[in-house]
Amino acid sequence: MTLRPETPLLDQVDTPLDLRKLEPAQLRQLADELRAEMIDAVGSTGGHLGSGLGVVELTVALHYVFNTPQDRLIWDVGHQAYPHKIITGRRDRIRTLRQGGGLSGFTKRSESEYDPFGAAHSSTSISAGLGFAVANKLTGNPGKAIAVIGDGAMSAGMAYEAMNNAEQAGNRLVVILNDNDMSIAPPVGGLSAYLARLISSSEYLGLRSIASKLAKKLSRRVHQSLGKAEEYTRGMVTGGTLFEELGFYYVGPIDGHNLDHLLPVLENVRDSEQGPVLIHVVTQKGKGYAPAEESADKYHGVPKFDVVTGEKAKSKAGPPAYQNVFGETLAMLAQSDEKICAITAAMPSGTGVDKFAAAHPERAFDVGIAEQHGVTFAAGLAAQGMRPFAAIYSTFLQRAFDQIVHDVAIQNLPVRFAIDRAGLVGADGATHAGSFDLTYLATLPNMVVMSPSDEAELVHMTYTAAEYDDGPIAFRYPRGNGVGAAMPEVPQKLEIGKGRIVRGDEKGGKVAILSLGSRLAEALAAADTLVAKGLSTTVADLRFVKPLDADLIRKLATTHEVVVTVEEGSIGGLGAHVLTLASDEGLLDGGLKIRTLRLPDIFQDHDTPEKQYEQAGLNAPHIVETVLNALRHNSAGVEEARA
Amino acid sequence: MTLRPETPLLDQVDTPLDLRKLEPAQLRQLADELRAEMIDAVGSTGGHLGSGLGVVELTVALHYVFNTPQDRLIWDVGHQAYPHKIITGRRDRIRTLRQGGGLSGFTKRSESEYDPFGAAHSSTSISAGLGFAVANKLTGNPGKAIAVIGDGAMSAGMAYEAMNNAEQAGNRLVVILNDNDMSIAPPVGGLSAYLARLISSSEYLGLRSIASKLAKKLSRRVHQSLGKAEEYTRGMVTGGTLFEELGFYYVGPIDGHNLDHLLPVLENVRDSEQGPVLIHVVTQKGKGYAPAEESADKYHGVPKFDVVTGEKAKSKAGPPAYQNVFGETLAMLAQSDEKICAITAAMPSGTGVDKFAAAHPERAFDVGIAEQHGVTFAAGLAAQGMRPFAAIYSTFLQRAFDQIVHDVAIQNLPVRFAIDRAGLVGADGATHAGSFDLTYLATLPNMVVMSPSDEAELVHMTYTAAEYDDGPIAFRYPRGNGVGAAMPEVPQKLEIGKGRIVRGDEKGGKVAILSLGSRLAEALAAADTLVAKGLSTTVADLRFVKPLDADLIRKLATTHEVVVTVEEGSIGGLGAHVLTLASDEGLLDGGLKIRTLRLPDIFQDHDTPEKQYEQAGLNAPHIVETVLNALRHNSAGVEEARA
Repeated sequence: MTLRPETPLLDQVDTPLDLRKLEPAQLRQLADELRAEMIDAVGSTGGHLGSGLGVVELTVALHYVFNTPQDRLIWDVGHQAYPHKIITGRRDRIRTLRQGGGLSGFTKRSESEYDPFGAAHSSTSISAGLGFAVANKLTGNPGKAIAVIGDGAMSAGMAYEAMNNAEQAGNRLVVILNDNDMSIAPPVGGLSAYLARLISSSEYLGLRSIASKLAKKLSRRVHQSLGKAEEYTRGMVTGGTLFEELGFYYVGPIDGHNLDHLLPVLENVRDSEQGPVLIHVVTQKGKGYAPAEESADKYHGVPKFDVVTGEKAKSKAGPPAYQNVFGETLAMLAQSDEKICAITAAMPSGTGVDKFAAAHPERAFDVGIAEQHGVTFAAGLAAQGMRPFAAIYSTFLQRAFDQIVHDVAIQNLPVRFAIDRAGLVGADGATHAGSFDLTYLATLPNMVVMSPSDEAELVHMTYTAAEYDDGPIAFRYPRGNGVGAAMPEVPQKLEIGKGRIVRGDEKGGKVAILSLGSRLAEALAAADTLVAKGLSTTVADLRFVKPLDADLIRKLATTHEVVVTVEEGSIGGLGAHVLTLASDEGLLDGGLKIRTLRLPDIFQDHDTPEKQYEQAGLNAPHIVETVLNALRHNSAGVEEARA
Repeated sequence: MTLRPETPLLDQVDTPLDLRKLEPAQLRQLADELRAEMIDAVGSTGGHLGSGLGVVELTVALHYVFNTPQDRLIWDVGHQAYPHKIITGRRDRIRTLRQGGGLSGFTKRSESEYDPFGAAHSSTSISAGLGFAVANKLTGNPGKAIAVIGDGAMSAGMAYEAMNNAEQAGNRLVVILNDNDMSIAPPVGGLSAYLARLISSSEYLGLRSIASKLAKKLSRRVHQSLGKAEEYTRGMVTGGTLFEELGFYYVGPIDGHNLDHLLPVLENVRDSEQGPVLIHVVTQKGKGYAPAEESADKYHGVPKFDVVTGEKAKSKAGPPAYQNVFGETLAMLAQSDEKICAITAAMPSGTGVDKFAAAHPERAFDVGIAEQHGVTFAAGLAAQGMRPFAAIYSTFLQRAFDQIVHDVAIQNLPVRFAIDRAGLVGADGATHAGSFDLTYLATLPNMVVMSPSDEAELVHMTYTAAEYDDGPIAFRYPRGNGVGAAMPEVPQKLEIGKGRIVRGDEKGGKVAILSLGSRLAEALAAADTLVAKGLSTTVADLRFVKPLDADLIRKLATTHEVVVTVEEGSIGGLGAHVLTLASDEGLLDGGLKIRTLRLPDIFQDHDTPEKQYEQAGLNAPHIVETVLNALRHNSAGVEEARA
């Protein structure tokens, strides 16, 4: 067992109230202790490390200068909030991070009054902060809102929309641009280049220089009182014209690890009557922990690791991750198909697009955290004859729902959606679960929606999607590793809208289980149990929720007594579509017993996947129980006594 | 009958190929004729007028200079594309605009090869254009993409995301910023102020001045080869620093009605090896038609009108529009409730928020075309104790789906969603239909989803939403006028999740019709017919799709032989939720005959609402037919011979 780091100052700080009792000169040591504590904690739990290490000083300075929780501190994305959690009353639980019943890996309103707004998707903090600020303005509440947002998050349109509306907040809103030149992958696009120019063109300002310039800056409105020449001259000195054009006072760039710079700037901004202010802070992701600083991804998300050596706990060897199966298959297909392109929204490795990009760099596009643009860009590529794959996590694809409807489905353009992290996702919790895609995609005319039951099926579906030029097509698959299926030598082109019988046959039996996606293994295990109880059971892998295999469903419904659907998605997806088909065709009129297993109508907290499936009721025993209960239910609609 | 305008030059132009045979000196007259033709056509059909009038010269110049359709001209939103349609082979059908079987009011791929990308939602054109441009880059196709986007559309994040990615297109992408200081309502926000400064700070450039500056501008890369000082000096002369920081060459502002300025600039840009270029064109919405120029909304969307006087055809007096019932009710409630706020995304009059703003200006927020920000801003307001109503059309709310999930529903914040234009919308067609909201909202945990059956119910639901602080709540209502219901003196607070019997009773009968929303009138008409045929019929107005009134549905399902649901929404909404409840509880096991009437699985083209309902199968005769077919269907699942 490693000894915990010694943290004499941090031990005195339970909340920011304690922090504010310290002298400014003590904060350097406090920050060092906080950093050591965080490294030790994440070493034992795994989680997001690099982002938090980059904002240790910023966290200390913000809570020291501002009057949290009355002043609302809003961390964008929230995965950099571990130091914040440690000094806002949650240190005693910091080693429960991302574990069932423990602290969330993100900010969460139910955890603490110091988390005024939960976050886990990127780029929401300015909008939320503006809401707080305007509410304060309306009600005469003196509190401020401080939104901390990364440079990567600035590539999202929603951040720009918020900046475009921010002026009304006046000095009630402070935006901290935490510029580490890196979100998860290196950032892309014009804004990123702009920020780099700001930093390179002006040497970091010294303390005296900051103070005097700041006083001048905040003393009057830029555009109203200054001539254009002076404005641009100022731009040359401190940069930030882009933000100033949108109505912000720009301050920076400032060294985000230097408390002697941070504290007076924050104090000036806090006391200013001018605003809104954007403070451009430059930080280093992974700061203060050599293994993280030296790593390419700066230890963005890590498993448990040895604090001294930085060595990460190895995950068990096993079947390949779905994302890599997708990325490698697509790269292989693209060797003989020059039309295939891949698009990722700032998640090249998470989606497997990195594998594609390594082989076909000119056809791989990382658009930044910009799912809306990414999907319509793909629609444009498709309209010009390419075969684009938009590879986006299920939960993030929600950002592009209108673009899927308006730019893709209505125009029936063949954009391929490779949807990773569909269903439950374990430690990342409700914000990252991909619960709704089956519902929000299958309701759209023209869409084809598939889900592979294992990694071999994912190969087939990737190929099927590549070859399908008749309209949009989506395939959604889970987080994590495959089930160990034998990988096909040659991918097969699946017939659109056709499922397959995996066990039993369509001629008849007592029970039919209609499975979509990777719960198939549980369906098969349930069938074992049912057959052992003397109940003949047919199991189908439907493959498609849209179009449904109506022939297969019709046959199974008319030759079995009980039909159960199983999916890893919320209400409105497979079960709803099967029920609707059955009612449209009158298949229910004869007293067919049909049940749908799906995700429950709650946002499930983070936990191990196993416990989440248990809570969701999507394991083999739940399927068995559902079947047995249905069989017990008599035709009068009343449950019979147990046999 | 008014005589058609004389158009000798326009009569020679069927497509841009003909246009390019004209001399530059003839284009002025052509533009005048095109404008006259457009005014005459829209006078007879109604439709979007002001936007098209503003881009007559731009339309002529773009098709004259660029090689359409090989060069891809993409109009953002598309409602300004009437002049474009007239000179791209559709003049003979221009007086069928927005009528069933006629031309769409927007660009549409299926209409013409000159419409490479359909549009009707705002701010998609740069993303799509980038897709075309990159596809050309990959395949060696020499074509360019020209995206025309309004200043109002620039308030949307998606446009910014696209600009942030545009640099890779090089000279294959040209963006025309059509700045008329007005989209539908005056634009808001920092960017709008910035554009105004650009225009006011630099006098319109003369032709000679443009040519020389342009040559200089396009001859080298701004940021790489010039010092900061020169860069900012240039900014002072021609402005556009914000766009240049994002990687564009900025040209402008240019008078968009002056062909002598437009043509050489477009030619220079076309022939430039540098790019992408953003050309800032200043136009006047409604240009050239005095009644439109003088109108506050510049004749954005108009009914038929008298071309000479500008007098608009009066719509029949009738019940109030739903949007106004909402806006006025909310304004009234806010008199005694200081927490109520209203948010619109650039649609103050369309949503009725203008009525609220007139009474409570400090609590009304027009965020621009920025639904994502608007919803998360509302979440911030709610988290700080306000009672925000986000009033957004159903189809545009799709833009904020992730924010509804992540920022509102997961956090269970009491944001109220007032969703107008739910269901079919007539002449605006598929892009504006609100078909999916029931499905994409009711699948979310924590959401309450209601729909009023008439305008009196809308009053009650507005009040119910105001009083509901337990989490998010949505109510969706149709485009157009109410049904003439008696308006309540005092709004009632409805019990959450409770429907009502409107006709018959829950004790039993042959047929139960479960209606949600404004199809209730058709359900009642169907009941009349059924009762006349001797079939006792109960009609319920469910009011809520989430939570469902399980007690009521259970009672009706067990005391009636046939249950039919009726909703104006696509698969996955009311019908799916009722079926799922019924199967969960085994209500189907006894042979209950249940049918769900919903929108069909197609994108319905624009037409009169009556014809759209007929196509959708949502009128009283369809309900009757569905019931009779179900009754004929025997318990073996086979349809019996007709009686």
